[in-house]
Formats: sequence, C-alpha cells, structure tokens
Amino acid sequence: MIVDCHGHYTTAPQALWDWRRQQVAGKDPDPLRVSDDEIRASLEANQLRLQRERGSDVTFFSPRAGSMEHHVGDARTSADWSRVCNDLIHRACALYPRNFVPVCQLPQSPGVPPKQCVWELARCVEELGFVGCNLNPDPSGGHWKEPPLTDRWWYPLYEKMVELDVPAMVHVSSSCNPAFHFTGAHYINADTTAFMQFLTSDLFKDFPTLKFVIPHGGGAVPYHWGRYRGLAQDMKRPPLAELLLGNVFFDTCVYHQPGIDLLLKVIPVENILFASEMVGAVRGVDPETGHYYDDTRRYIDGSTLGAADKQKIFEGNARRVYSRWR
Amino acid sequence: MIVDCHGHYTTAPQALWDWRRQQVAGKDPDPLRVSDDEIRASLEANQLRLQRERGSDVTFFSPRAGSMEHHVGDARTSADWSRVCNDLIHRACALYPRNFVPVCQLPQSPGVPPKQCVWELARCVEELGFVGCNLNPDPSGGHWKEPPLTDRWWYPLYEKMVELDVPAMVHVSSSCNPAFHFTGAHYINADTTAFMQFLTSDLFKDFPTLKFVIPHGGGAVPYHWGRYRGLAQDMKRPPLAELLLGNVFFDTCVYHQPGIDLLLKVIPVENILFASEMVGAVRGVDPETGHYYDDTRRYIDGSTLGAADKQKIFEGNARRVYSRWR
Repeated sequence: MIVDCHGHYTTAPQALWDWRRQQVAGKDPDPLRVSDDEIRASLEANQLRLQRERGSDVTFFSPRAGSMEHHVGDARTSADWSRVCNDLIHRACALYPRNFVPVCQLPQSPGVPPKQCVWELARCVEELGFVGCNLNPDPSGGHWKEPPLTDRWWYPLYEKMVELDVPAMVHVSSSCNPAFHFTGAHYINADTTAFMQFLTSDLFKDFPTLKFVIPHGGGAVPYHWGRYRGLAQDMKRPPLAELLLGNVFFDTCVYHQPGIDLLLKVIPVENILFASEMVGAVRGVDPETGHYYDDTRRYIDGSTLGAADKQKIFEGNARRVYSRWR
Repeated sequence: MIVDCHGHYTTAPQALWDWRRQQVAGKDPDPLRVSDDEIRASLEANQLRLQRERGSDVTFFSPRAGSMEHHVGDARTSADWSRVCNDLIHRACALYPRNFVPVCQLPQSPGVPPKQCVWELARCVEELGFVGCNLNPDPSGGHWKEPPLTDRWWYPLYEKMVELDVPAMVHVSSSCNPAFHFTGAHYINADTTAFMQFLTSDLFKDFPTLKFVIPHGGGAVPYHWGRYRGLAQDMKRPPLAELLLGNVFFDTCVYHQPGIDLLLKVIPVENILFASEMVGAVRGVDPETGHYYDDTRRYIDGSTLGAADKQKIFEGNARRVYSRWR
C-alpha cells in the first residue's frame, strides 16, 4: 500500500473560495453549499485520477495550506474558516474513505494563544476521525512574530496532541511579506526554521511522544545535514538521532531524483514518509524526465533502496506516526 | 591554486570587538588600536594555519558576517562600523597579500536607501583594492522589512557594482528574531529567499553583468532544484540556466560529502565556487569522518568530478566572478 501523507484540497469547489471571499469582505456568509457531486467531481478529475495514474492508494488530506491565511482577520475569522474547511475535508474523506484520510487546519491567529486551537483539534479528531493537523509556526504570514515552536506558548496544544496521539505537520500558509515567495521561499524556510528550533531545545524531553512531520523534504535540512550535526555538536547538544529523530519526520516532497537520493542517503529510513503534495506547488512536467515533477513515487521507486525500506517509507512509517489511522 | 571565496575575520583581535561594544553603548570610541603583530597572531593561529593544513592558497576575506549587525543603531553607526571593519580587513590582506584578498562589508541600515552604500563600496574597491562585497538582503536582522533584492530600491548600488565590476555575496548578519537561529536558520533561509527573488524577476535583463554569489551552497536551492525548475516553468519564466545562471553562483559551504555531491550533480560546474567559511559557523570534527566539517576541500577532492572541473571550482570560476582579482 502506498500512503501519501501530504495532500491539500487545492481543487475544492468554487463555492468554498466564494465563501471565503465573502468572509474576508466582512459579510457574514451563508452556510457553505456544496453538493456531494461537486466534491466528487473536484476529486475525480484531480487527486483520484492522479492516485490511479501514479499508483498511490491513500492520501492524508487537509485544507489548502496557502488558504489557511491565519493572518487574515482575527481569531473568530480563523475559527469560522477552519471549521468550514475541516468540515469539507470530512465530507470529502467520507465520500472516499479508502482514498482520503482527514487532517485538519488549526484556527490559529497571530498573537492568540495556541490553546485556542485545542477545541477544533479535539472536535476534528474525536468527533470526525481526523488523524493529524497542520501547525503553522508563523501565523503572521511571513513576519515571524510568534515565539519559536519550542516555547511554552505552544504547550497547551502539544498536551492535546499527545493526549489524542496525533502528529502535526509543520506548514506555513501564504506569505504577505514581499521578501518571501510563498511556495518557493516561505514554505522551505519554515521547514528549515522549525528544525533548527527543535535542535536548540529540550522540547522532546517535555513531550517524549510528540511528533512533527517537516514537509518539503525537511526544507534545507538534509542537504545541510553535516551543518546541523556540527551545530548540535558545537552547542554540546546530543547527536541528532538521540535529540530529535524519535519525534521529527520528513516527507518526500522533493521534486527531482538527486534530491530524493540525498534525503534517502542521510536521513534514517524510519524518519521518512512518502508524500507528493499533489495537486500542489509544482504542476508541470519535467522536460528532463517526461514525468510530472511532483510524481515523487517515481523517485522512490528509482532509488537504490531495498523493498523493506521502501515499504517503510510508503506505508509503515505513516502507520507509526499517524497512529490513529487504521 | 585553491581559492576559498568565503572567509570572515571571525578571529579579529579583541580590540575590534571592544571598539564595537563602546560604539553600541553610545560612547564615541577612540580610533581602533591594533598592532600588525596582533593581526598576524590572530591569522597565523587560525586561518593561515588552516590554509596550510588543508591546502588552500588564498581566501577572499571579509568582516565577520554575524557582526555586521546592520539593525543596530542608525546609518551613521553602520557607516562608522563598516569603515573600521573594512580598514582592518585591508590591513590584514596587506600583511598577507598572497593569502588574503579583501571583500567589504556595506554600511547598510534598515530603511536607508542602498545608494548610501555606494561611497564605502567605491572607497574599498578603488582606493583599497577590494574585489567584492557582502550584501545583506535583510538589514533588519530577521524581520525582513526591506524590498526584495530585485526591487529598484537596490538599483543605485547595483549600478556601482556593475561599474566597478565587483560581485556581491548575499549574506545576512545575526538574527534578532527569536524564531531564527542565525547560522542554522537565518543564513540558510536568506540564501533560499534571495534565489527565489531572482527567479521571479527580470533583474538580470536590467543588469546583464551583475553577479551574485549565494553562499552556504545556495541554501535549500540545489536540494530542491526540481522544485525551482518546476516553479519557473509554471510561472512561464525562462529555464533557470537562461534566467539567472549567467549571474548567480553558489559556494561550496556544505559540510558533508552527500550535500556536496548533490550540489555538483545538479548545478553546472561553471556556477560553483569553492569556499569553506572557515573559521565560521561549524568548528568541530565530524565523528563520521574524523575531519573538520568545514574542511570542504575534502568533499570536492572526494567527488567524482574530473580535474578540469575541479580546477574551475577551485580557481577558474573565482577568477571569472571576482574579475578584479589578479
């Protein structure tokens, strides 16, 4: 079985984006009206078709990351928008329970304590069967005003994650800072930033069972694995394996063979989860290969890894990290 | 000959740091008093010893990046501090003209137009023989308030760089944003950010001969080279080679063999300049190899590249990019 742990509902029906537009304009939108057929059409033409074409079986499915926009409006705006998005994810996954497993957006808002997200997380996990969440380390959208992820500021949310036994994927949203292109800089920077925050802290002493997935292949981290091993060493931190590899995992959203080969070479196979983020940041066909850049299964298949290791990446590790998923 | 294009005077005599402490405290420091012998001692015990031990011949040498601290004080603070630092670099390089070639710090200050840096750049290059500069894309120190490097805001500085025929290394300084560890996140993020800024702009149509070196192996860029090729393609930009590889170069400050192997595999050899950033961010010995993490010559030597390509990386490309250096 092939589990893609990183998919967003980028193709949601237009009514969702219309609802959001009304909300941002300050109107009180009517309840979202989307038919089951519209949901089916949006998935059949896109994610389901690609699952079939590329040979993946199930996608952990969350609201579009770039649209979380935690920086827009206030905590109420974010709570309402998160609920609408998560409910739609729930419906999509209920229509195709063999193909999609729900992961939720959190109702974060800049400067608002993360414990305000606990209720929506609990609702999604306990009532609706979600298996994980996306946690935005920078709800300001590129201004980075929140304390590091290792600050006690975040602890109430972590307590709930641990209690519910769900991991968080560290995932920023769109950037309203003109310095940072969102999918080309902000996403990748956030991955790198979060890893370094974890490296410098004792967070996982406080929460030994807390689990994070760093997407986009871990940002810059595997490419600079020697730098991070060396920085930890200079700071008299424990070796990275001991310090954080029981808690921090990387996905395979790296869109060329040499990048995946590096990831597989330097990061222990137990810490790598298959993912493509389709339909996502990069949608074209690589002229060098004739295949879609984000058809990441080809890169894993094309690697020199043995079958048992591939199985861990494709399925086993996802079952371990997203342990509520059966 | 082996040219290390990225070295900072991290080991400068204590008097320099005392001068700075006085300046930041609002005292008007006396002129810096450092003897030639103190400079010699600071280099003989460190960079010169390591050049000999590791077999490099010459280092392009600039003030300590983390101490540029453009966010401290105002434009006058930065101008005075830059002048003191650059003059000390000039003296160090004059004492060892075969070993060190001067590269300057720019007197940037948040919100101050970059054309204010033109005079110090011209002084360093025309009067003191400097061959390049370090350009900070985020003089705010981790708050990223400046326009992207591709904005016309920066053009007066670029006009002078082109006129003088000097490249800039894109290099941030320390971070005063608690989200960003400076050498573990801010440096690497800045590299990635700058590349993406270049990718989305037509800067190099306006300045066909402008040259930037992106340090630390290009941040996350080579690891995500497929992503960047795909993003450019989705945006209907030209292929990266055509769009920016005539103007953008990467150094080899990547501190493990798999990272260097990736860099050499995906980036054209003409765009890679040898560098170690010693004595810098990572100072320990890698227990996996028994050698210093930042002894990057070993990784180039250990690669499968042919002799002619290694010569380009070790010397030829540096002569082309830093064309004032004879």
